[in-house]
Amino acid sequence: MPITKLRDSSCSVSRSLSVLGERWTLLILRLAFEGETRFDGFRSNLGMAADVLSDRLGTLVENSIMTKQAYQEPGRRTRYEYHLTPAGQELHVVIAGLQQWGDVHLPWEGGPTVVRQEHETSAPVRVAFVDGDGHEVPLDEVDAVRTAVYPR
Amino acid sequence: MPITKLRDSSCSVSRSLSVLGERWTLLILRLAFEGETRFDGFRSNLGMAADVLSDRLGTLVENSIMTKQAYQEPGRRTRYEYHLTPAGQELHVVIAGLQQWGDVHLPWEGGPTVVRQEHETSAPVRVAFVDGDGHEVPLDEVDAVRTAVYPR
Repeated sequence: MPITKLRDSSCSVSRSLSVLGERWTLLILRLAFEGETRFDGFRSNLGMAADVLSDRLGTLVENSIMTKQAYQEPGRRTRYEYHLTPAGQELHVVIAGLQQWGDVHLPWEGGPTVVRQEHETSAPVRVAFVDGDGHEVPLDEVDAVRTAVYPR
Repeated sequence: MPITKLRDSSCSVSRSLSVLGERWTLLILRLAFEGETRFDGFRSNLGMAADVLSDRLGTLVENSIMTKQAYQEPGRRTRYEYHLTPAGQELHVVIAGLQQWGDVHLPWEGGPTVVRQEHETSAPVRVAFVDGDGHEVPLDEVDAVRTAVYPR
């Protein structure tokens, strides 16, 4: 089953992966959160083929996760920049969740290459569950509960 | 490049995906968070081939994300149950992050099939960034910052 077929699933993890689950896509988003916007910047950092990068960025634009904007430097041809939309910004918790898990459970000898911090204070932040008031709820106090529309 | 090669990357998203990025793995984890423990339960819910399921569960056990335990019902042969380890539990924010994004941006006509709530109160919880005191930090106040060991 191709991954795009998951789009119609009743499972929202599957639907999200129908857009995000292709190889490279989450790594492109990781770079976008670090501030990368340019095609050549994504390509050189990830070392990926231009046609695949173009395809993945196209999927992200089609799904309103990124926007594509033309820009032109003096004396050069028109190029394109890619920026995260508000819907794309919401994926930061997914990327950061993968990152903090990898940094703890599959550590690299040099330590973390990217950290997340509060803009004003530079204090570290992490991904967690919160309640309606924005207070952390410990992992072992969170239940995943099937609703009445869960397929039986 | 096979996905397992990402294991040695300096990028922690890549390292996490070296274990989690194979097809089906995140969907297996989704079911585990809903309480599924049995091979046949995973297989019938996901409709996947037994050999692929066996391979994916094996990877999760090898990487200490799940444990495999024998159990036996009277008059039946020995079977195996799979339970999340504490390291596996930490992946709940990743699965829930994909789920809440899909429920908002790729909604299903029937509504969410799984919701997350606080065990004691059944109040809804969501995934967010928090500071050291466990207070939510808004998305637009979080920066991803490259450290001194980021490869140049």
